Amino acid sequence: MPTFRLSLEYDGREFAGWQIQPGGHRTVQGTLHEAFRRVTGREVRVIGAGRTDAGVHAEGQVASVAVETELSPDRLRRALNGVLPPDLAVWECALAPEGFHARYQARSKLYRYRIWNGESRSPLRAARTHHVPSVLDVEAMRRAAALLLGTHDFAAFQTAGSAVRSTVRTLERLDVEGEPRGEITLLVEADGFLRHMVRILAGTLIEVGLGRRDAAGLPAVLAARERSRAGRTAPAQALTLVRVSY
Amino acid sequence: MPTFRLSLEYDGREFAGWQIQPGGHRTVQGTLHEAFRRVTGREVRVIGAGRTDAGVHAEGQVASVAVETELSPDRLRRALNGVLPPDLAVWECALAPEGFHARYQARSKLYRYRIWNGESRSPLRAARTHHVPSVLDVEAMRRAAALLLGTHDFAAFQTAGSAVRSTVRTLERLDVEGEPRGEITLLVEADGFLRHMVRILAGTLIEVGLGRRDAAGLPAVLAARERSRAGRTAPAQALTLVRVSY
Repeated sequence: MPTFRLSLEYDGREFAGWQIQPGGHRTVQGTLHEAFRRVTGREVRVIGAGRTDAGVHAEGQVASVAVETELSPDRLRRALNGVLPPDLAVWECALAPEGFHARYQARSKLYRYRIWNGESRSPLRAARTHHVPSVLDVEAMRRAAALLLGTHDFAAFQTAGSAVRSTVRTLERLDVEGEPRGEITLLVEADGFLRHMVRILAGTLIEVGLGRRDAAGLPAVLAARERSRAGRTAPAQALTLVRVSY
Repeated sequence: MPTFRLSLEYDGREFAGWQIQPGGHRTVQGTLHEAFRRVTGREVRVIGAGRTDAGVHAEGQVASVAVETELSPDRLRRALNGVLPPDLAVWECALAPEGFHARYQARSKLYRYRIWNGESRSPLRAARTHHVPSVLDVEAMRRAAALLLGTHDFAAFQTAGSAVRSTVRTLERLDVEGEPRGEITLLVEADGFLRHMVRILAGTLIEVGLGRRDAAGLPAVLAARERSRAGRTAPAQALTLVRVSY
């Protein structure tokens, strides 16, 4: 049975996240399962590299799926796009080595978090940014980001109550781009992410940028390993999964 | 009675255009009138520099309004933003010379038309671009654009049945930016625009880019002054009013 590797783009607004849930919520995974059912007549299980939360977008989500089909990868891609809704599209579809697993084999993932730092609301940016109307100290945010880079126990930066074996991750990149009063973009790359980790990192850096928290205090937050020591979880609509590397 | 100059941003998706219409449609102008009523207790008439169509966005619409109020321009701006819906915001509010008229006194307006030329649909771009899946010949589009620059009778580039005194306009800028298979942006600046003019220009250039029409034929289209000789009206959601100059 061939295994395919899919590259996906979606607008997260109308999805209750990636993962199928009980209760009939509209999810990315569930929508893909339905599309495979219509195109191939098969029940499949699509595995995403990142289990994005409700409201989170993706430009470059990667998924794996094993399915019995006579369609070529390119025909499969076109057929899926023909039945998928407007807010979800397959960019690429290629044959992958047997056993390819989009999540387990991912080496790193890159997320983008967009902050709109103008004083006024920006209607054209609202759906994809988080509006912070007070001026952010971008230099302080960069100093804070530098202290988080590298391999650490990020237990303080995951939603309380998550159960994972290890909370150690390697943060390879945490760039703060842009200028106060404009759009400020966080680029966050790691070998793996804990639940809500990017949004808690974003919320914490914003508190530093607002002067409510000192950049120099971040090593102590890491060391404490307590969710309550880190900043608030920043809203989902500003977050996009940009790229998965293998 | 003081006259104010407003700078506005809006997401055009949920508006039936700028101008108040009979029948209770939700319009930008009508929404502003309601906001002024709530903030100042007065009935006003807000005049926009460009009467944008249904679905067209604005980053830099300019409007004028004369209203009796004791609020300073900055307080007026904040108060309006406090009651306006999320898809409409006032960026700037300043006192203008008495008699300032946002439309009559505008020297030029700049519009942006965004084309997504990827083969696949792009869910994150869909709300603000026009998807053209076949490869566009951008060089041919640039040659065509160059032939339209300058002062011409643009009667062929207005919706049939429009009644305006003169259809002569000066096209100061018609840049085709970007590359095939990426995002292609048209930047269109003129001293004034006929109804649907930017969208008919966009539709005509797209037909050139697709090889369905010869760039060299455009002077004859202008000379014919017949709507049927120009290209189709490209969709509204890809169009944004960027800037108004005085």
